[in-house]
Amino acid sequence: MTIKPLSNRVVLKNIEAEETTKSGIILTASAKEKPQIAEVIAIGIGEVNNEGKLIPMTVKVGDKVIISKYSGTEVKLDGEEYVIVKETDILAIVD
Amino acid sequence: MTIKPLSNRVVLKNIEAEETTKSGIILTASAKEKPQIAEVIAIGIGEVNNEGKLIPMTVKVGDKVIISKYSGTEVKLDGEEYVIVKETDILAIVD
Amino acid sequence: MTIKPLSNRVVLKNIEAEETTKSGIILTASAKEKPQIAEVIAIGIGEVNNEGKLIPMTVKVGDKVIISKYSGTEVKLDGEEYVIVKETDILAIVD
Amino acid sequence: MTIKPLSNRVVLKNIEAEETTKSGIILTASAKEKPQIAEVIAIGIGEVNNEGKLIPMTVKVGDKVIISKYSGTEVKLDGEEYVIVKETDILAIVD
Amino acid sequence: MTIKPLSNRVVLKNIEAEETTKSGIILTASAKEKPQIAEVIAIGIGEVNNEGKLIPMTVKVGDKVIISKYSGTEVKLDGEEYVIVKETDILAIVD
Amino acid sequence: MTIKPLSNRVVLKNIEAEETTKSGIILTASAKEKPQIAEVIAIGIGEVNNEGKLIPMTVKVGDKVIISKYSGTEVKLDGEEYVIVKETDILAIVD
Amino acid sequence: MTIKPLSNRVVLKNIEAEETTKSGIILTASAKEKPQIAEVIAIGIGEVNNEGKLIPMTVKVGDKVIISKYSGTEVKLDGEEYVIVKETDILAIVD
Repeated sequence: MTIKPLSNRVVLKNIEAEETTKSGIILTASAKEKPQIAEVIAIGIGEVNNEGKLIPMTVKVGDKVIISKYSGTEVKLDGEEYVIVKETDILAIVD
Repeated sequence: MTIKPLSNRVVLKNIEAEETTKSGIILTASAKEKPQIAEVIAIGIGEVNNEGKLIPMTVKVGDKVIISKYSGTEVKLDGEEYVIVKETDILAIVD
Repeated sequence: MTIKPLSNRVVLKNIEAEETTKSGIILTASAKEKPQIAEVIAIGIGEVNNEGKLIPMTVKVGDKVIISKYSGTEVKLDGEEYVIVKETDILAIVD
Repeated sequence: MTIKPLSNRVVLKNIEAEETTKSGIILTASAKEKPQIAEVIAIGIGEVNNEGKLIPMTVKVGDKVIISKYSGTEVKLDGEEYVIVKETDILAIVD
Repeated sequence: MTIKPLSNRVVLKNIEAEETTKSGIILTASAKEKPQIAEVIAIGIGEVNNEGKLIPMTVKVGDKVIISKYSGTEVKLDGEEYVIVKETDILAIVD
Repeated sequence: MTIKPLSNRVVLKNIEAEETTKSGIILTASAKEKPQIAEVIAIGIGEVNNEGKLIPMTVKVGDKVIISKYSGTEVKLDGEEYVIVKETDILAIVD
Repeated sequence: MTIKPLSNRVVLKNIEAEETTKSGIILTASAKEKPQIAEVIAIGIGEVNNEGKLIPMTVKVGDKVIISKYSGTEVKLDGEEYVIVKETDILAIVD
């Protein structure tokens, strides 16, 4: 899919079923709440700060990340649900 | 049409019917909600930052973009509905 | 009329009847809502930024501009209604 | 009267009766609303910005100015009502 | 009394009875509202700005000043009521 | 006790009974309100500003200080109540 | 566990039972409130400030810290509850 987030934005796909990471963490998306664990699908080129310098991205496509239940914008593309957040709204990467 | 957005603003036209992008994404505008997918109709020259430098625009006329359901100002010109947003409110470009 | 807006402010006069611009756009001011299309009557000299530099104005007297329905301060002078906005609240110039 | 506003503040006196300016604008203060037209009675020396530079004042004592109905602090001194605003809250000078 | 305000803070004592300044202004503290006229009792050394420079104080002990009815923190020391404000909340000095 | 506040934070202990300072001010903590007078128990090393410079602390352990009734976070350690505030929330030192 | 907080974020684990620190402070987590004492489980590399400089972290893994009852985002990983906060939300380290 060709979706190009602007600035420091990141397109995430919620993890719908239980998954286990390489290090053995079980990731679960509660059926009752907006999931907090998601996979990075696409990333922007980074944010240009007030001095005009590009701040490169930290996350990369394929990373599993934790976001707050209340951050981001939900979008539906091609019948699938995505969440677009700024990288500064990503709390941590899980491995 | 001659409409010149100021600063980093962008004039968007909602996509009213289902469309398929070059890479095959189906873009649909729900009849029940303010659409999230729009086409760029006109762009400003960019924003001048606090150091007085012009930050050039990233999107260009003809781009299909994703915006939040709640961003921008709706205007009616010549009987047509448009949305004017700042480029910083555009989440991603879809191709 | 001698009215001198301060900083980057702009005095606007609502367009009360239907008008057609040079490029053929029909501008209409709805009777039910605060109009969104207005004509520039007077402009300030521009804003002085935090570095002490004057940022010159983009709009000029006579321009037809689009503003949000909710921006600006309404004032009544000599029996006529005007709206005073900051230039940063002007969304676009129509021609 | 000896009242010395601090920073970029301005002491204003509401125009209580109809007045006509040099260029012929009739200034009226509605009896039902907080007046929007006022005369400058005293000015501060200007604001010191974040770089430590003094930004000089634009308005001068005697100027007739337009302010928003909702800006400033009303004070009563010697039985008279005044409004103290920051110069950045003054919208325009009328002549 | 030994009270040392921090940064650009100022300790004020409300003027409880009618007083007349040197230039003849009658200062009155309404019994129904929080007074707006107060005397400077103690001052801080000034605020250190973002560049690390000390911005010296403008008011001095003994000045009569005007503050907004809603600014400052009321404190009771030794049975007396004081108001502590930042100097930037002082609107004007009256003489 | 070994408690190390971060940045420009200060650990305070409310003054529970009437005390008299060296200069004779009687400090009282009302039984009905959150006390406003407190003693400095521990201090951080100071805040690092946006330029990366450390701004040293002004208050020191043992100082009696005035804070607003509404500032700070109450914590209970070892059965005792403390308040942790930023130094910028301390209004004045009393002696 | 492999969890990598971004920027200046810190992963904390609430202290569930009474513990005594080396210096003898008894840390208790009330059963009725969100605990205020927590242990640092993982830390980010620090925040990049507006000048592009990395501000290193102050806390380290294993530190016992005090946070406000209302700060941070609760996440559940592998059946365990964690709180992710920015280091600037940590009030103090207890030893």
